[in-house]
Amino acid sequence: MKLALMTWPEVEAYLECSKGIILPVGSTEQHGPMGLIGTDALCASEIAEAAADMAGAIVAPTIAYAPAPFNTGFPGTVSISEQTFLALVADICDGLSAQGFETVYVLNAHGANLAPLRDLSERFHPCGIHIRSWWDFEPVNTLRRSLYGSWEGLHATPSEVAITQARFRVVEPGAAAVPPRQLNPDEIAERAGDRHGSAEDHRREFPDGRVGAHSALARPEDGERLLNLAAMLVAEDYREILGEP
Amino acid sequence: MKLALMTWPEVEAYLECSKGIILPVGSTEQHGPMGLIGTDALCASEIAEAAADMAGAIVAPTIAYAPAPFNTGFPGTVSISEQTFLALVADICDGLSAQGFETVYVLNAHGANLAPLRDLSERFHPCGIHIRSWWDFEPVNTLRRSLYGSWEGLHATPSEVAITQARFRVVEPGAAAVPPRQLNPDEIAERAGDRHGSAEDHRREFPDGRVGAHSALARPEDGERLLNLAAMLVAEDYREILGEP
Amino acid sequence: MKLALMTWPEVEAYLECSKGIILPVGSTEQHGPMGLIGTDALCASEIAEAAADMAGAIVAPTIAYAPAPFNTGFPGTVSISEQTFLALVADICDGLSAQGFETVYVLNAHGANLAPLRDLSERFHPCGIHIRSWWDFEPVNTLRRSLYGSWEGLHATPSEVAITQARFRVVEPGAAAVPPRQLNPDEIAERAGDRHGSAEDHRREFPDGRVGAHSALARPEDGERLLNLAAMLVAEDYREILGEP
Amino acid sequence: MKLALMTWPEVEAYLECSKGIILPVGSTEQHGPMGLIGTDALCASEIAEAAADMAGAIVAPTIAYAPAPFNTGFPGTVSISEQTFLALVADICDGLSAQGFETVYVLNAHGANLAPLRDLSERFHPCGIHIRSWWDFEPVNTLRRSLYGSWEGLHATPSEVAITQARFRVVEPGAAAVPPRQLNPDEIAERAGDRHGSAEDHRREFPDGRVGAHSALARPEDGERLLNLAAMLVAEDYREILGEP
Amino acid sequence: MKLALMTWPEVEAYLECSKGIILPVGSTEQHGPMGLIGTDALCASEIAEAAADMAGAIVAPTIAYAPAPFNTGFPGTVSISEQTFLALVADICDGLSAQGFETVYVLNAHGANLAPLRDLSERFHPCGIHIRSWWDFEPVNTLRRSLYGSWEGLHATPSEVAITQARFRVVEPGAAAVPPRQLNPDEIAERAGDRHGSAEDHRREFPDGRVGAHSALARPEDGERLLNLAAMLVAEDYREILGEP
Amino acid sequence: MKLALMTWPEVEAYLECSKGIILPVGSTEQHGPMGLIGTDALCASEIAEAAADMAGAIVAPTIAYAPAPFNTGFPGTVSISEQTFLALVADICDGLSAQGFETVYVLNAHGANLAPLRDLSERFHPCGIHIRSWWDFEPVNTLRRSLYGSWEGLHATPSEVAITQARFRVVEPGAAAVPPRQLNPDEIAERAGDRHGSAEDHRREFPDGRVGAHSALARPEDGERLLNLAAMLVAEDYREILGEP
Repeated sequence: MKLALMTWPEVEAYLECSKGIILPVGSTEQHGPMGLIGTDALCASEIAEAAADMAGAIVAPTIAYAPAPFNTGFPGTVSISEQTFLALVADICDGLSAQGFETVYVLNAHGANLAPLRDLSERFHPCGIHIRSWWDFEPVNTLRRSLYGSWEGLHATPSEVAITQARFRVVEPGAAAVPPRQLNPDEIAERAGDRHGSAEDHRREFPDGRVGAHSALARPEDGERLLNLAAMLVAEDYREILGEP
Repeated sequence: MKLALMTWPEVEAYLECSKGIILPVGSTEQHGPMGLIGTDALCASEIAEAAADMAGAIVAPTIAYAPAPFNTGFPGTVSISEQTFLALVADICDGLSAQGFETVYVLNAHGANLAPLRDLSERFHPCGIHIRSWWDFEPVNTLRRSLYGSWEGLHATPSEVAITQARFRVVEPGAAAVPPRQLNPDEIAERAGDRHGSAEDHRREFPDGRVGAHSALARPEDGERLLNLAAMLVAEDYREILGEP
Repeated sequence: MKLALMTWPEVEAYLECSKGIILPVGSTEQHGPMGLIGTDALCASEIAEAAADMAGAIVAPTIAYAPAPFNTGFPGTVSISEQTFLALVADICDGLSAQGFETVYVLNAHGANLAPLRDLSERFHPCGIHIRSWWDFEPVNTLRRSLYGSWEGLHATPSEVAITQARFRVVEPGAAAVPPRQLNPDEIAERAGDRHGSAEDHRREFPDGRVGAHSALARPEDGERLLNLAAMLVAEDYREILGEP
Repeated sequence: MKLALMTWPEVEAYLECSKGIILPVGSTEQHGPMGLIGTDALCASEIAEAAADMAGAIVAPTIAYAPAPFNTGFPGTVSISEQTFLALVADICDGLSAQGFETVYVLNAHGANLAPLRDLSERFHPCGIHIRSWWDFEPVNTLRRSLYGSWEGLHATPSEVAITQARFRVVEPGAAAVPPRQLNPDEIAERAGDRHGSAEDHRREFPDGRVGAHSALARPEDGERLLNLAAMLVAEDYREILGEP
Repeated sequence: MKLALMTWPEVEAYLECSKGIILPVGSTEQHGPMGLIGTDALCASEIAEAAADMAGAIVAPTIAYAPAPFNTGFPGTVSISEQTFLALVADICDGLSAQGFETVYVLNAHGANLAPLRDLSERFHPCGIHIRSWWDFEPVNTLRRSLYGSWEGLHATPSEVAITQARFRVVEPGAAAVPPRQLNPDEIAERAGDRHGSAEDHRREFPDGRVGAHSALARPEDGERLLNLAAMLVAEDYREILGEP
Repeated sequence: MKLALMTWPEVEAYLECSKGIILPVGSTEQHGPMGLIGTDALCASEIAEAAADMAGAIVAPTIAYAPAPFNTGFPGTVSISEQTFLALVADICDGLSAQGFETVYVLNAHGANLAPLRDLSERFHPCGIHIRSWWDFEPVNTLRRSLYGSWEGLHATPSEVAITQARFRVVEPGAAAVPPRQLNPDEIAERAGDRHGSAEDHRREFPDGRVGAHSALARPEDGERLLNLAAMLVAEDYREILGEP
């Protein structure tokens, strides 16, 4: 159930039964030569909606703009400041709380959102804010590994590309058929913290935007499976947090 | 063409031919007992996409959250501060400008956005910002009047309800089958400036959220026609601003 | 993934990763004046397929014919003997086992199948047979109660009607708009064991086929929610049995 | 009209006008590297439903499991014993007869079902049982020959593959692009009687499951045409048997 | 197969196997308050295409304009002269004949076309012209009678309305819920010859355009059945004329 | 809004608000080895319907048969005489005029129709006849040139092929992948007047039917864009002619 498609009397009736809501958060940035600019926002939206259908929850409109300064060397990336991002999420949570929502389940799909989101959840809020990324669930990562092994990489991963293929659009690989440079374990450890250099350095180091990820391995069927599995685990987690049976 | 569904090489190719982009802006607020919470964001998105198809333009992700303090007395309304809204639009415009977009055509669907948006367009920006609401075009208003006469009203209007019916969902009127109190000309003049009292006053005065608008007259076929007409006029206007043939 | 829609090399590849399969079992019998003859087979099939998508499992073709002697007083009911039913399920399980499937997860939707199925699982089989009905999961029953209270009843229940409405067909209630006789707790206890009298007695006692169930309360949206919830719980249970993460 | 999607009062009304029903019978067995496991059940179901729409008849749920011992050397084949198969069909015919159906038109799509089905029709039954395979109609075979000539072969034929392509799924040929060994007339005559050796012999002789059939020639458009033609002829035949105009 | 959607090499290949083509002929005239202006053209097109799919034939573009002078008292009727109609059909048949088509099967759906069409078929033509109306087949009329009895009437019949409902649009009956004046046998005999008075007389006598036909009895399911039956009989008839098996 | 899908009371209501109607005119003739026989009729219909949706207009049934004698050397072309074509259009315009339509906007898609159509518009008519071809609008031609440059050619152009690809069918290029002989400026000037030699000469000179047009460059996405742009310009033009705002 999308909040955007409900009437106010329907929201009123919902709030008599449940005080929870899911808020998807993504980004608008390059995802390599065959990944979509909206990959993160689309993944967050689709997983959130599927999970909400399973758990009987409402989904708020997706936050599609986020900080992504390191990717601005690639056309189409739209990066906003951490400060604006933080103000926006905080205002939305306050607005939801003012309506009686007591639990905001933030479903994130963009690594660079995590630092500001954690910052947010540590401040005082009248409602509980729970932050999860869709890769926080171990069975999801097991499936990602079993599908793509070390070619999953860190950015423009075949898994996220596959999820968007399942629901939106399959782009022909073209030049992306050539595997990217594979990252070594040190690089992976270093970058996993989502620390990035300047936009120029980033593009120099990863000229087509893929970071150790072989996007061309993605298949829509894989995406459907990843999406369903992630949604199921999000739904379980959400229901547990809300104390619903 | 939605930016979210393009790859970065596709955006790069587009920027070689055109420097324009359309940015839809809506709200997340009550629209009466049979109108959808997302009415404004949905109208802005749909008209923008249809216009972009006609004009060969790109559409950026919709801004769905906006200031709507006077409507917070109704469940489901999520209002953010004018300051946050302004920071978000400014950051997005700066981000688009940094990518080489020279013209941002803001397509608005929520009256209360106009004051902050005008504020924004008056400041210095490296790119040109053009602000239009979908009711800025006279043929659209002629059609609204010919369809609903004075029952169009000011909020939860049959026209905006009809547009969402055409593309998303038709809600049974229920209690909304009873016409709302009709506004007199003085009230219309006074409120047309989008000045509103407190949330409590607003709900007291308009108990079910409709402001002089008889939403139950809406029909999906009307919405399809309104949407197509508005899109055609937006496309013309956009092409004229960009100096395209 | 339906077995019927796979090729043999695809089944071979699947068996290298997993040894489990889901086998839906229903019936072909009356479900009151607005419920479908295939209600049980349709519910079993749909829940099994949704669960299989979540768990990455295969679904075998549904067993649609089953024993239902007590309902043969109503046109359209096709009842087979317990002996034939048992032989069929046993042959299928043996056939699956011969192909290397080690776990057959029988998803049942017809109460009268339980006695013969239990009989089957107690005999020696080279593969493990796990029998579940879709109402074996407590959260599903909580949702059924919260939707329909005591009007859920025992046969042609609004829950099963709602699931078929969500995916197949909505029949106008007609005479079923009138509530059936409500069962008292003693009757419920007595009948819950799926013990039934003769076809004649059954029709005399429940002239339109509903057993304490007010089918007309069913709504497709409820069905979608019940189906998703049941599928999620079946997927979890299946993965736990198979020892998958 | 599928029996599974009717209510009992609808079946009652039907029986006042007509006493006939169509019962599709298939199998669950390998159909070569690009044919579907469910090919026979899917062909029987689709032709039966299209014919029923033309003739105004009811279709009973498809019997998807059947004897196919010679194909058990290929993953995914599920073979049941002739005895169980016979008991199942007999019970269903008796069940239909008990409801007042006087003519059961069995539409078969699996050669190995013919011996047990003939056995059945020779015994005493209160209702008339008429057994047809979809290739019993000469115009269908003319079309098969005109489309595929001698490459039609005997198992995993391009015709049956084409029918499933038209309605369910098109599998890329892969290795099946290479033609199979072509059968000589003696082999065809010998095998046409559906006599088969052991599963091991069968797989040794036909290593990828195709028996003289070049499945890769199948095209969905051909399938649509075959399906429509077969359905038309079945509908004619059914109406003639029932003595309907 | 629609001629309009084929390429010329595809037509060339077709002509090597078959020399037949189906030409649907309708009208553009009122069909009562809930029947569509295009009823006849739509019925002819749909039945022709379904029959062509069964018989493997080509369908030429539909002739939608025809003589209907008696109906010009109702808005939307577009009547052309018999002379123009005749010239058009003759030119098309000559054009088809010049391409090598030897049999033109005219499928008619408008009574007033019959006189000029018969006129045409009696002249010399290099190709054979066979004229059929979809109600020329006895089983179709049996079904019409069994569905609507004497309420079938002569114009805006529930049967033709039902066929357009099945494929195009269902109009709410509104005032057409009230039955029309029922014709007596003498009137039926007199009018069956498609002899009509002036437009003014016709409208005076049948003020809402229905001629003894209770259009509001139409249901899309009936239309689907009528369409399938008529198509099957047309396909049979066409194949017989062409001497195809 | 298609006239064929309206009822007469709906046409009556329309005529109270507007007196205009759009009449699409095409042809039935070869369009090269990968273009459809119905290309012109399909382009005219689709552009007319999209424009009508934007302008709130009615579309009359398409005239699909037209004079095309020079193309009769290619299978599938059906050519009628200029005289019959003229009589048909004149009768239809008179018929529309008799119903109260005052403006008939003829949307043409076949060059050879222009001479007879101009002839028609010069005669006396009670209604105004306005003739446009979809390539009469400069922005459309700018887009055609920008997409295909000089490969657009004169017949079976990638633009018209692309429009039919967007809505109907994509044919594999096959032999059409080889570019046709490119026309020199003199030839273009000479032929642009739609003067053609005999059918034999025409086929000898352009053996596969393409006239300087490289159809294989067509893409459905281009067609969608061409269609939308042409429709927008037709809608504008139509509204201006009718004096609607």
